[in-house]
Amino acid sequence: MEKELAEVLLDAANGRDECDLVIKNARIADVYNQEFFTGNVYIKNGYIVGFDDDLKAKEEKDAEGRYLIPGFIDAHCHIESSHLSPSEYSDAVVPTGCTTVIADPHEICNVTGLDGLEYMLKASEDIPLSVYFMVPSCVPATAFEHSGAVLLASDLKKYIDGKRILGLGEMMNYPGVLAKDEEVLKKLSLCWENGKNIDGHCPSLRGKELSAYVLTGINTDHEAETAEELREKTRKGMYVMLRQGTACQNVKELVKGVDEKNISRILFCTDDRQPQSITREGGVNYGVSLAIKEGLAPALAIRAASLNAALCYGLSDRGSIAPGKRADFFLTSEVKDGIKAEDVYISGTLVASGNRIIKKAKHTKPENVAGKMDVKDFSKEKLRLTLKGDCVRIIDIVAGGVVTKCGKAKVKRDEDGTWIHDPKADILKISVIERHHATGLVSNALIRGYGLKHGAVATSIAHDSHNIIAVGDNDEDMELAVKKLIATGGGITMFCDRKELATHVLEIAGLMTDATLSEVTACLDMMHEKAEKELGVSKDIDPFMTLCFMALPVIPALKLTDSGLFDVNAFSFVPLEAD
Amino acid sequence: MEKELAEVLLDAANGRDECDLVIKNARIADVYNQEFFTGNVYIKNGYIVGFDDDLKAKEEKDAEGRYLIPGFIDAHCHIESSHLSPSEYSDAVVPTGCTTVIADPHEICNVTGLDGLEYMLKASEDIPLSVYFMVPSCVPATAFEHSGAVLLASDLKKYIDGKRILGLGEMMNYPGVLAKDEEVLKKLSLCWENGKNIDGHCPSLRGKELSAYVLTGINTDHEAETAEELREKTRKGMYVMLRQGTACQNVKELVKGVDEKNISRILFCTDDRQPQSITREGGVNYGVSLAIKEGLAPALAIRAASLNAALCYGLSDRGSIAPGKRADFFLTSEVKDGIKAEDVYISGTLVASGNRIIKKAKHTKPENVAGKMDVKDFSKEKLRLTLKGDCVRIIDIVAGGVVTKCGKAKVKRDEDGTWIHDPKADILKISVIERHHATGLVSNALIRGYGLKHGAVATSIAHDSHNIIAVGDNDEDMELAVKKLIATGGGITMFCDRKELATHVLEIAGLMTDATLSEVTACLDMMHEKAEKELGVSKDIDPFMTLCFMALPVIPALKLTDSGLFDVNAFSFVPLEAD
Repeated sequence: MEKELAEVLLDAANGRDECDLVIKNARIADVYNQEFFTGNVYIKNGYIVGFDDDLKAKEEKDAEGRYLIPGFIDAHCHIESSHLSPSEYSDAVVPTGCTTVIADPHEICNVTGLDGLEYMLKASEDIPLSVYFMVPSCVPATAFEHSGAVLLASDLKKYIDGKRILGLGEMMNYPGVLAKDEEVLKKLSLCWENGKNIDGHCPSLRGKELSAYVLTGINTDHEAETAEELREKTRKGMYVMLRQGTACQNVKELVKGVDEKNISRILFCTDDRQPQSITREGGVNYGVSLAIKEGLAPALAIRAASLNAALCYGLSDRGSIAPGKRADFFLTSEVKDGIKAEDVYISGTLVASGNRIIKKAKHTKPENVAGKMDVKDFSKEKLRLTLKGDCVRIIDIVAGGVVTKCGKAKVKRDEDGTWIHDPKADILKISVIERHHATGLVSNALIRGYGLKHGAVATSIAHDSHNIIAVGDNDEDMELAVKKLIATGGGITMFCDRKELATHVLEIAGLMTDATLSEVTACLDMMHEKAEKELGVSKDIDPFMTLCFMALPVIPALKLTDSGLFDVNAFSFVPLEAD
Repeated sequence: MEKELAEVLLDAANGRDECDLVIKNARIADVYNQEFFTGNVYIKNGYIVGFDDDLKAKEEKDAEGRYLIPGFIDAHCHIESSHLSPSEYSDAVVPTGCTTVIADPHEICNVTGLDGLEYMLKASEDIPLSVYFMVPSCVPATAFEHSGAVLLASDLKKYIDGKRILGLGEMMNYPGVLAKDEEVLKKLSLCWENGKNIDGHCPSLRGKELSAYVLTGINTDHEAETAEELREKTRKGMYVMLRQGTACQNVKELVKGVDEKNISRILFCTDDRQPQSITREGGVNYGVSLAIKEGLAPALAIRAASLNAALCYGLSDRGSIAPGKRADFFLTSEVKDGIKAEDVYISGTLVASGNRIIKKAKHTKPENVAGKMDVKDFSKEKLRLTLKGDCVRIIDIVAGGVVTKCGKAKVKRDEDGTWIHDPKADILKISVIERHHATGLVSNALIRGYGLKHGAVATSIAHDSHNIIAVGDNDEDMELAVKKLIATGGGITMFCDRKELATHVLEIAGLMTDATLSEVTACLDMMHEKAEKELGVSKDIDPFMTLCFMALPVIPALKLTDSGLFDVNAFSFVPLEAD
């Protein structure tokens, strides 16, 4: 608080001066006592100053008995997954009742390093949505691929104490933590020295390994999948996030482990939500709604989505409807069957209504992060897949998830040993093209279960290094698709018979665009339809999101990086040929 | 955390190295899930590293199924009220299971200013009890008396960011907050700028005044008296403390407003506990026990007394039994009928057992704060009470509390108008003698209900300015009592027929002593008996504590400062003579 602001608020709160606004007749969520009470909320200079009827206000609005709920805080998200720039993301999620997000910009930092962090900071300044950041802890995610940047503790040092930097982002390198990896400890030290938070990421970590991980001060996790895991993690002192992303959806299972006794240790997050999910279902409110539908009392769910995140991350100016807090809240008619924001206020101003943004975010030009494509000597020749035998390892897609299986198959080859597509086999070529440092690296392998009959799909979203990933039955379409992405600066594209079917341009680091959510959704809807109808991609999978995870060498079982085929369980490269 | 420590703990937690100690077969309090679980607690270098049976430890202790509970945190206390120096206070409260206190040294600062703060910091360094401080916000408490020091924001500035300074102590000057008092806002600004806590003190403040007070960031209160008040304060965002002091006891009433829904906003504190109360009942555990007896579930009460205070004050290294937390805990056989610590561990070392201290605190010599008596020209003459009429205002003692009533009485005078003691009337003379700045100020008035038949009692504990206060039926004994305190540097003394009956010497600022709790208790027990048996002081009141509050001009209704008789409700001095 600033002294001048305190003076203004004190005058209003004491009735010596008029408030700017009063919302009358609201059912106010009291997240401290986990109950609702009927009252009026008086607002001055963007802050709540009281509930008392002997105050005066210039403007009066009647909530007509609707619920007044603190703006939701998305405790962990990657804005990049929305394909939207921070300003468009604000316009997209604010109407859902989300007023604050804690973002880890590790996708863009994997492409553009600190330029990405600078851009995200700048592009999210002075927009309706409050955007806080955790500096990415794991850029790159592994040493088995080429990312656009390597961020060391020494790089992060100058940022860690920033006003909108709350700490270190998800520490995915839990083996490094347990093994006292020097660089990992240096990164953790930044937070120890500066009293900052450290976000965790420890899927399935239990027992003494979990204890070891937690004792370093890592105090959140968003990777719990079972109620039992949730209870062990809360017991050991972690805040556990109920995540409802697009690919990873954990609310339904986790909420079984949540009750009145541990509710103060529960947060909600989206992690990664695709544009179509945001359009159709919403943002963090979708997970909250789902939890309520699964039986969590609305007052508890609301508390978890507001106060808890504020307390966990030290955001003392928000998270509740109380004197001195920011007037970030929304009105809604019902809470029992889920939560749909109707009128959304940020700093006491109506910014969205009826799921439409009123106060649009100002836009920041994406300098230094646009058109990041540095590919050397790419040509069709590099896509040739030569095999020493017929029997090969194959990436088996598992529908509805991000894991794959390590399959085997017998394939056809020509006289030179070059793989030949068999229209009956549903086996396609998959290629990863390094795009950051002009290394010229291209690796090729085979994938099964994608369904594509003829043509190619390529994307520059390929977790976490975001090289170009392409899949297809023929090298010509694949080549054209890859070249299209190089030319546009990235995105998602589809080719068939050497013709471009459609392209979703993601000019910001090859991950995001300045288009609006509705434009992006319309484009992706169209492309999904074409992928299915014109390319024959299986209905059971998302044609684009599935591809995004095929290069991620930390999620089992078999993946392809720009450096080769990678067995995640063995944590090493393996040859294409099987025994 | 330090990197070197993290490495040691990681080795132990991963089983690569032996732990120092394991407490086996304990019923461990999980304050996050508010439940108990049976398990083992592994400790290394004073920290908890895990619960898992595949770890090794050099030393093994069997808890034999006893409860293992995180060390209690007393969220607000004035150590001075115990009459003990910090080291002796540590030895006194650690055996009760209290391992951390948040102390406001405003008593000693009222006498010795920043020397008092320096002494308290130094004397509490490296002792078993963790002592954190809030810098006093209200020295002096009012402008209607002479204290030993005036602490301005500019004085506090250099301390606010100290390692063991958590913020600003109880802001008793709530009218100053509401009225935007410049100096008050400067003090609050210190916390706003440094991200520090601000403790509240707002008895009976409700409605818009409470909202105004809270919006400045003041986020705790220990003055709530009713469940209704507790709910309004929690609703507005405050942590509410359940206080069980010696004079002020609020647990029984407040606990009616506490439930599973708001438990995360509840703390326990002692505020002021006298030595005899600590000896007979304990410290903060006494309030916790009382709450349990009143029906609060033990798991909830324990959480409030540990985790909540740690979260409220940002003490991230403690407050629970979890990996990475300090091994501050105690073992006890039962929790259902209240909590009595049996074995107390601090940093993994057994420091007390069977209510006896094992590891005594090191003692710090009280430089600059001993013998603070600067009284000018004191003599019996100054005690003469001359009245212009027979009808006088009189301080009417209310048994069992700190408030008084403003009474009236008709008294006897001699030919010069000098008051004459009437043995039938139970009206005594009360005098306040300024002791800090040799002003020579002495003020006299009359008090009813004390019961003393013959003799005098004097004390240098007189909230909050701690001048000398004396009561008696004759000026000779009063004079000797006051002179005794001047000679000893302060304390409590009793005279009768010009003979010293007993003296409790408080050589540290006239408030505290380096004697042990048992010595102090024995002395006070003896003096209480003499006060009753030999002086005839009423059984219904505490002969010494009652006196301590007679000079406090912020507690109604009629008080006496060194500057005169003060009507607290009118907030002004009033003449002795009534209409």
